[in-house]
Amino acid sequence: MVQPSALPTEQHLAPAAVFDWLDEAAALRAGAGLTRTLRSRPAEDPVLDLASNDYLGLVHHPAVTRAAADAALRWGGGATGSRLVTGTTALHTELEAELAEFCGAEAALVFSSGYAANLAALTALTDPDTLIVSDAYNHASLIDGCRLSRAAVHRAPHDDPDAVREVLAARTHRRALVVSDTVFSVDGNAARLPELSAAARAHGAALLVDDAHGLGVLGAGGRGALAAAGLAGQPDTVATVTLSKSLGSQGGAVLGPRRVIDHLVETARTFIFDTGLAPAAVGAALGALRLLRAEPHRADRAREVARTLSARLTAAGLRASAPDAAVVSVRAPGPEAAVAWAADCRSAGLAVGCFRPPSVPDGVSRLRLTARGDLTERQIAEAVRIVTATAPVGA
Amino acid sequence: MVQPSALPTEQHLAPAAVFDWLDEAAALRAGAGLTRTLRSRPAEDPVLDLASNDYLGLVHHPAVTRAAADAALRWGGGATGSRLVTGTTALHTELEAELAEFCGAEAALVFSSGYAANLAALTALTDPDTLIVSDAYNHASLIDGCRLSRAAVHRAPHDDPDAVREVLAARTHRRALVVSDTVFSVDGNAARLPELSAAARAHGAALLVDDAHGLGVLGAGGRGALAAAGLAGQPDTVATVTLSKSLGSQGGAVLGPRRVIDHLVETARTFIFDTGLAPAAVGAALGALRLLRAEPHRADRAREVARTLSARLTAAGLRASAPDAAVVSVRAPGPEAAVAWAADCRSAGLAVGCFRPPSVPDGVSRLRLTARGDLTERQIAEAVRIVTATAPVGA
Ligand SMILES: Cc1ncc(COP(=O)(O)O)c(C=O)c1O
Ligand SMILES: Cc1ncc(COP(=O)(O)O)c(C=O)c1O
Repeated sequence: MVQPSALPTEQHLAPAAVFDWLDEAAALRAGAGLTRTLRSRPAEDPVLDLASNDYLGLVHHPAVTRAAADAALRWGGGATGSRLVTGTTALHTELEAELAEFCGAEAALVFSSGYAANLAALTALTDPDTLIVSDAYNHASLIDGCRLSRAAVHRAPHDDPDAVREVLAARTHRRALVVSDTVFSVDGNAARLPELSAAARAHGAALLVDDAHGLGVLGAGGRGALAAAGLAGQPDTVATVTLSKSLGSQGGAVLGPRRVIDHLVETARTFIFDTGLAPAAVGAALGALRLLRAEPHRADRAREVARTLSARLTAAGLRASAPDAAVVSVRAPGPEAAVAWAADCRSAGLAVGCFRPPSVPDGVSRLRLTARGDLTERQIAEAVRIVTATAPVGA
Repeated sequence: MVQPSALPTEQHLAPAAVFDWLDEAAALRAGAGLTRTLRSRPAEDPVLDLASNDYLGLVHHPAVTRAAADAALRWGGGATGSRLVTGTTALHTELEAELAEFCGAEAALVFSSGYAANLAALTALTDPDTLIVSDAYNHASLIDGCRLSRAAVHRAPHDDPDAVREVLAARTHRRALVVSDTVFSVDGNAARLPELSAAARAHGAALLVDDAHGLGVLGAGGRGALAAAGLAGQPDTVATVTLSKSLGSQGGAVLGPRRVIDHLVETARTFIFDTGLAPAAVGAALGALRLLRAEPHRADRAREVARTLSARLTAAGLRASAPDAAVVSVRAPGPEAAVAWAADCRSAGLAVGCFRPPSVPDGVSRLRLTARGDLTERQIAEAVRIVTATAPVGA
């Protein structure tokens, strides 16, 4: 980093120079090949999209977009205030009731994002005498929730229930909370929830799982990872979900025992001091949820597409992950190769995700493909063809 | 707090007992009269609403709700992914360009909430060698942003630019960031931005203001508090705004120099690891912004309603604040009296906010009235009549 001056502090900087350090930081990132830029997409995008998190392909479904539009027209453009003041419409309450029932939880609470739901759960369900045991590959929002909490945080090795058990056994904190993604977003692998739950229970700890990538995909009819593991409705278990992936909307929710939900209403800062989720997003999520109830095969189909994609890419000689949900990752020989590979896919008409350090916890660069449940056989074949044809040497 | 057992930790708790401590916490809150409950409102609410943050009364305006509906139908129920992957539509880019131009900033970046925008600005614009000087009455999202950052945080006395100057002068950190709400949400009083900016500049510090309650209300045509203070577009100044108040939608934005915005795109976790704002919310905010440009008197009218409300309540013998924006607060003799007063207003057909400890930084319980710019003379008279008629002894 360039040292801009010999001053101990920058007390005499001119206003125009106050943010000069951002340019230095940008130059460092550029030198490391880590520049990111925003690309905006048109409404009718001809590209085949395997980069989004629209696992069930519902984001453009008329039952979802119509429900969003109707909600905006009926309830207004926004929620108008905190959920505790004016921001709870009857539509919010409906969504909460249907989500809870669908997932088999006692109660649910909707937030403006999955990120906010995670911050809320981690801060409100812990205190300074709590030990949080958090999987090393957990999502950024869980990590930020740990940082915002006043609890002690132990970062456990990825996917290692025995390690969790040991940490819990040795703890001196009065309470403990085990925290894990259900499906890890980059690689698409699933946590072993029965083992994690058993470890937590052996030591009187609560279990908090982030089912962002499980809801709509795992469990009977897409009821989520806890349902799949037989853990829905357990008194010591809480799930967070997002409405922004399988449900084709925006927002998040916490699902769990009624007393957990009541506690969040009364104490969670990202609930109390945040404007309620906009009615259109509530409507879209409700529309998607009802569609999924009516057409439960959509969840199975997403998992089936993932298995097909993975099998065909593996057969073509690529290192594709064995999918536990609707995400397939394909290893690249390195970060530059991954970036070039994704760009070549795009040029050929296929959008895929590209993950590389520092956004991958294990340092492995890869493509990330979303196995959308609405992909046709023809689209699957096309995706496999393009990923294979553009694969770099060493992939 | 009841000590549930003699165990040093709760390692042998049954699953059903893991969250027992939440009931104890609830009992303590109930004992202190601090229970909060969610009340859901119907679509056609007969109550006169002075409790929301819908300052311009746009949340139900057809130009806003229609824009939300159209955006959902055209762009889908959700943004489908992170803004960096698939979550940036051309509509997001349009909103960012128009917001920046409206407020006189070089660039803007839209987030899923104002809360997320504040977390982003505070974490991305600071480092461990930064001193944040934060007004003691700042909003919860700014406080959480301070906590999430790795900077040193100094809580400065409320509305005291001289104190800010002293802290900055004595600092040993290389960088500094002065942080303040522009309009404080509870009382509606404004920060003295020219003095704060001068204090920051005297010591090479950047200035970050949260204009959640200023956008749409302050400055020519509602261009916000920085515009009102002649500070729009300054190279050392950044604003955050919400789309959820005057703009009748959901979401937030950071406005500032292009290099600040680029830096947020590349490093802010609540931008990178969060799904983009739903198209309907983007559309609603754009609809409101365009309406405000076409009808700039809406901003003046909100301030005028506030002055009228305050003057009449004061004339009636109540302790109403002298409003700097579109919020009028009225002192209550105590927390129970405030709660009862707000309930009596509601029974009489008027919704008002009720703030009491611990949600008020100064410990003063009060009613909070939103001076919606679309209130008619008749509604204003009705509001004054009800607040006055229900006032408790000692108010
Ligand atoms: C595992 C996980 N949790 C939480 C989130 C945050 O959810 P949202 O985008 O709805 O804020 C995401 C992704 O965005 C995620 O992948
Ligand atoms: C001053 C201030 N900043 C930020 C926020 C958060 O904005 P949002 O509700 O859009 O997340 C609020 C209120 O909600 C606020 O009053």
